[in-house]
Amino acid sequence: MTMISKPELALRGAVPGPKQKISVAVLGATGAVGQSFIRLLANHPWFTLVAVAASERSAGRPYAEATRWLGTEPMPDQIASMTIAPCDPLKVDAELVFSALDSSVATQVEAAFASAGRFVLSNAKNYRMDPDVPLVIAEVNPDHLCILEAQQRRRKWKGGIITNGNCVAIVATVPLAPIHQRFGIKQVFVSTMQAVSGAGYPGVPSLDILGNVIPYIGDEESKIESELQKFLGTAIGDAIQPASFIVSAHANRVAVEHGHTVCMSIALGKKTSADEVAACIEEWRGAPSARGLPSAPDRPVVLAKNPDRPQPRLDVNAGGGMTVTVGRVRPDPLFDVKLVAMGHNILRGAAGASVLNAELLITSGLVGSA
Amino acid sequence: MTMISKPELALRGAVPGPKQKISVAVLGATGAVGQSFIRLLANHPWFTLVAVAASERSAGRPYAEATRWLGTEPMPDQIASMTIAPCDPLKVDAELVFSALDSSVATQVEAAFASAGRFVLSNAKNYRMDPDVPLVIAEVNPDHLCILEAQQRRRKWKGGIITNGNCVAIVATVPLAPIHQRFGIKQVFVSTMQAVSGAGYPGVPSLDILGNVIPYIGDEESKIESELQKFLGTAIGDAIQPASFIVSAHANRVAVEHGHTVCMSIALGKKTSADEVAACIEEWRGAPSARGLPSAPDRPVVLAKNPDRPQPRLDVNAGGGMTVTVGRVRPDPLFDVKLVAMGHNILRGAAGASVLNAELLITSGLVGSA
Amino acid sequence: MTMISKPELALRGAVPGPKQKISVAVLGATGAVGQSFIRLLANHPWFTLVAVAASERSAGRPYAEATRWLGTEPMPDQIASMTIAPCDPLKVDAELVFSALDSSVATQVEAAFASAGRFVLSNAKNYRMDPDVPLVIAEVNPDHLCILEAQQRRRKWKGGIITNGNCVAIVATVPLAPIHQRFGIKQVFVSTMQAVSGAGYPGVPSLDILGNVIPYIGDEESKIESELQKFLGTAIGDAIQPASFIVSAHANRVAVEHGHTVCMSIALGKKTSADEVAACIEEWRGAPSARGLPSAPDRPVVLAKNPDRPQPRLDVNAGGGMTVTVGRVRPDPLFDVKLVAMGHNILRGAAGASVLNAELLITSGLVGSA
Amino acid sequence: MTMISKPELALRGAVPGPKQKISVAVLGATGAVGQSFIRLLANHPWFTLVAVAASERSAGRPYAEATRWLGTEPMPDQIASMTIAPCDPLKVDAELVFSALDSSVATQVEAAFASAGRFVLSNAKNYRMDPDVPLVIAEVNPDHLCILEAQQRRRKWKGGIITNGNCVAIVATVPLAPIHQRFGIKQVFVSTMQAVSGAGYPGVPSLDILGNVIPYIGDEESKIESELQKFLGTAIGDAIQPASFIVSAHANRVAVEHGHTVCMSIALGKKTSADEVAACIEEWRGAPSARGLPSAPDRPVVLAKNPDRPQPRLDVNAGGGMTVTVGRVRPDPLFDVKLVAMGHNILRGAAGASVLNAELLITSGLVGSA
Repeated sequence: MTMISKPELALRGAVPGPKQKISVAVLGATGAVGQSFIRLLANHPWFTLVAVAASERSAGRPYAEATRWLGTEPMPDQIASMTIAPCDPLKVDAELVFSALDSSVATQVEAAFASAGRFVLSNAKNYRMDPDVPLVIAEVNPDHLCILEAQQRRRKWKGGIITNGNCVAIVATVPLAPIHQRFGIKQVFVSTMQAVSGAGYPGVPSLDILGNVIPYIGDEESKIESELQKFLGTAIGDAIQPASFIVSAHANRVAVEHGHTVCMSIALGKKTSADEVAACIEEWRGAPSARGLPSAPDRPVVLAKNPDRPQPRLDVNAGGGMTVTVGRVRPDPLFDVKLVAMGHNILRGAAGASVLNAELLITSGLVGSA
Repeated sequence: MTMISKPELALRGAVPGPKQKISVAVLGATGAVGQSFIRLLANHPWFTLVAVAASERSAGRPYAEATRWLGTEPMPDQIASMTIAPCDPLKVDAELVFSALDSSVATQVEAAFASAGRFVLSNAKNYRMDPDVPLVIAEVNPDHLCILEAQQRRRKWKGGIITNGNCVAIVATVPLAPIHQRFGIKQVFVSTMQAVSGAGYPGVPSLDILGNVIPYIGDEESKIESELQKFLGTAIGDAIQPASFIVSAHANRVAVEHGHTVCMSIALGKKTSADEVAACIEEWRGAPSARGLPSAPDRPVVLAKNPDRPQPRLDVNAGGGMTVTVGRVRPDPLFDVKLVAMGHNILRGAAGASVLNAELLITSGLVGSA
Repeated sequence: MTMISKPELALRGAVPGPKQKISVAVLGATGAVGQSFIRLLANHPWFTLVAVAASERSAGRPYAEATRWLGTEPMPDQIASMTIAPCDPLKVDAELVFSALDSSVATQVEAAFASAGRFVLSNAKNYRMDPDVPLVIAEVNPDHLCILEAQQRRRKWKGGIITNGNCVAIVATVPLAPIHQRFGIKQVFVSTMQAVSGAGYPGVPSLDILGNVIPYIGDEESKIESELQKFLGTAIGDAIQPASFIVSAHANRVAVEHGHTVCMSIALGKKTSADEVAACIEEWRGAPSARGLPSAPDRPVVLAKNPDRPQPRLDVNAGGGMTVTVGRVRPDPLFDVKLVAMGHNILRGAAGASVLNAELLITSGLVGSA
Repeated sequence: MTMISKPELALRGAVPGPKQKISVAVLGATGAVGQSFIRLLANHPWFTLVAVAASERSAGRPYAEATRWLGTEPMPDQIASMTIAPCDPLKVDAELVFSALDSSVATQVEAAFASAGRFVLSNAKNYRMDPDVPLVIAEVNPDHLCILEAQQRRRKWKGGIITNGNCVAIVATVPLAPIHQRFGIKQVFVSTMQAVSGAGYPGVPSLDILGNVIPYIGDEESKIESELQKFLGTAIGDAIQPASFIVSAHANRVAVEHGHTVCMSIALGKKTSADEVAACIEEWRGAPSARGLPSAPDRPVVLAKNPDRPQPRLDVNAGGGMTVTVGRVRPDPLFDVKLVAMGHNILRGAAGASVLNAELLITSGLVGSA
């Protein structure tokens, strides 16, 4: 693993994968997102999960003992018996590190790993908005990885940090990407209805959400408003320049298990019809460099035909949970077009997005090339 | 009950009520909204429920037998034994008629009653957007009742039709009214999360909505977009002139029993701060002519202090279900201010609104004055 | 397809299947259970779905047009274009017929098909308790098929009727079978918590069940009490002799999508410990003749280890929805042992059970042998 | 407050209440049950809430600041400004003390208060099954209070501890009481479906219960099995002798906000019909000494007529949440009769029951008589 120089960053199309498996670790491995990483990595064709790390309180204990395992499939046997390591780069010997760390500790721990030459794929919010930290959706802005070179240079890191976004910001951005590429976006009104799994575990108390709506999720609206701009921004010099459109977000929690639903009204730079926008979404296959990666769905976005779709319970697992389903593309009386998008907040919106970014990192030649 | 002449329309402040009770009937009395009317009218201080009417299929049967009674309180005894009348003005002897008719029959039946000299308070959508039919929220636009005179004249009716609005349009309009009055509204984004009781009974199948969101309610968005304009419009000559602001609506169904939640972003005519808008909402008491009416809450709108309010389960019964609760009044990056409103779709949004309109009709001298 | 003679009835172990595919049809194909049949039959290795039949109202129309398709996967293309046939054996040319008919018409229609030489696999309740009609769970009582010979003889039918049971009765019976076989059952208390999909579509209104329990399902308790006895009864002469144990059932509806949960207290003939009962359940693999059939799960029942399992949301899809999950096998202060069972009401409890019965019918040589 | 001597224990009928208000305090005041006590005591006609106490972590802080207030009504102003006291009898000057303490600390703290001459009405499980501690439902077994004299004597306490029961045990016991009194109970099979509010706050994570059933609640079944016996037992000498019938319980958690539903099959000592049992329940008014107390409902139990009742959402607030609703009284194939009972777990099953017990303590002359 060496310093990145610009020429290496020309992104290639999907390739068969690394010659030998890449060693990976999960930081914050006992929580809900950490467990999702483990499920995705346990049988990954390119990666070998060699370490699980968590807080001092859990370190030293077998993973099975320290973890309240969520989900329906049993814990993979080879993980169950692993001893939890502390979140220290000296104790975690892996090339790639997936971070599901709490934001209260992520700033320091992730920097320590990056400084020690590891590439950190982080689900934490801490570094997302730093201009020299790529905030990436593999199908949308893989070219933002090029900023890693500046990150390494300026921070004197041998490794680096790549972030995925907030779960609902990712779901909203995927269908906006082809629209922005083709027509240019000027303004976006966003109103979300977010699943309880987005709050982790134990997360939302049942007494708060049964038969109810909570029209407030702390910090969520500002994340949506800023991350959409950065995802659809441009790498210029040593920084990502956010897109200049303005976003207004309303974030709501609803009694849904998995799947964030997003209503959007969009003002376009180049006027066009709702049908043209629908066609643009339907045709889009995402960036060539993300196609064919192990975690990439056939299509990053699909267009539902029925007027009452997408719905979380019916569509959340489209494309193995990695496809965003869009419906109701129609004219907007105020802006140009309105639509509904829905995607899996844990897969498309968190752990799956991060694993896909790691695959992109491999094929881009940034890791594992020696 | 005589033809209305303009001078009589000067609306007065709330008064003790009619000297003697007014006879009223409910059309479409067996359905969900019809039953709500009955619950509100069974012990009303001003009204005596003298007849219940429904389709030919139910007519002639005792009400208790023909009706699948919903709700927790038992059916009032005096209603249970009533024989259901057909929806024919010759068979229904009441001064005021509340219509919970299905839109498939409301056009003809309501006109027949109005023609026969009755005042019809209609929850049906059929006449709402006719320029000479008042679409009224008692606290918001009681002056629109003046258009009844033109309605009678042009249609040669001895009675008339007064409509309340779509349930979620009412909830959205109540807090917009003081904002429009003080600052002027230019644009509104509306995104709703609507309770299942808004779809009547049996309404939404549980298989469709458990743990789910349905981002589509037929016709709802166009109703919101047009009714908001009419509610906040102006009576000019023989017609209501809708307000000129533009509305874009996204309507969603969620797994909530009662209470529609509405997220709104608002562009103002006269720029001001979110705090000023909040203060304007908090101070507002609604039109003087609606104050003190039996069904009027102390306040048509209250401002919640907690950042995670309003919530349907906690706030739906505020003001006996007639108060809209507003929260999260904050600056909007795109427009000027955003907020959340929530109100009871059956009470504030349907039957309760209609009964309140009837009370207003009494105190305005249009009915029962002789 | 000829009259069955006793010697042919010696049930064989699972075999590779019929030499050529068997033509099948679905009666009542547009409803919820009918659609489940279609999903299971569309790509079945042994069966070819050649006809869909429904009421006169739907007959003659393309299936896609007449049906409100439920579920997440799109309607199979080859089915979508089929013209719906009337439920008339002259118009439905198939060897096997799956009946999802409403009980109001099943008596006559199913008899007509059986009389015309077809074998009817019926999910309707009408014939279930007739002594000469087999009520079969493939892994539990495949030998009851032998009564078909008496059925044909007595009713002068060239075909016959085989029924699966009530959905929750099947879920309860699967774990009782090994217990009854090993220890003998004397008494059973059953208390159910049943999913809304058990009521079909539109089924239970959301207003009735959101945040609620309905402690009543019409007819369900008597079905449970009698079907458990018949499933675990004995074929004697020309009739099934029900088991002599007594059952008391409490049936409840809960806000669950799929998966019926059943609490049971069991008095045994031969006293033993709860651990022995658990081991008996864990070891059981069901009747040899059902093993290896295309729709048979690896295990008809599995034992959950965690004290808070089974749970519908976590365990409903075990074994492709055909495995019943049992947990909490523990001593009972009143009887001998208590436990919880949970299984998929649509798959294990209805359409899947019926298709599995059809497969058993093939391998038993009763159909398709010519 | 002096030592109790037997003659004073003759329980009187309800009387107008104490000459002057009794000072009361709440221990564990910040939790869910503690808050319920506060809601019930804030405007109580007989009691004045003079102190709120909680753990050392909260002590010294204003109640409003230390408490995440649950429920719809705002926190009473006079409580909001109270400074939280530590759970020390020297710092809490009140005659009666309501304990919502966690079981980890209740043993010591409650004894300290009782030793210091206070009467503790405890919702904790710690002392419930001690033979010299009354476990009381005011309408069922008020005579068990007489055991307080033995408790004081043996433990050398100047005050004493009176416990209410487990929430679902209370709901089950109320309708069993008249049946046991009239016919004698021999055996009871109990299967529960319990609301999430029974687990406190934050309690059950929404991810665990949305669209799900959890067939396990730690310790609950053994509490049901033993508390039912004690409630319906007899005070003999210095101890409560539990009733000799045997109970088998299955406890389940369901996605309901408030209201525990209980299915029961009952074997009787004296055989009778289900109709007689229903009549017995309907006629029952509870112990005379509990009638007319401020928290006593008109009827401790009511019989629902509709076959699909009781239901938590429709019936939970019957009698201000203090009435248990019973339905579906019908013959049981195994025992004699089966039925469904449902009651409010927070009011009838916890805080309300405890306050009612306190009122009984007053009228029984045990407290406040000097």
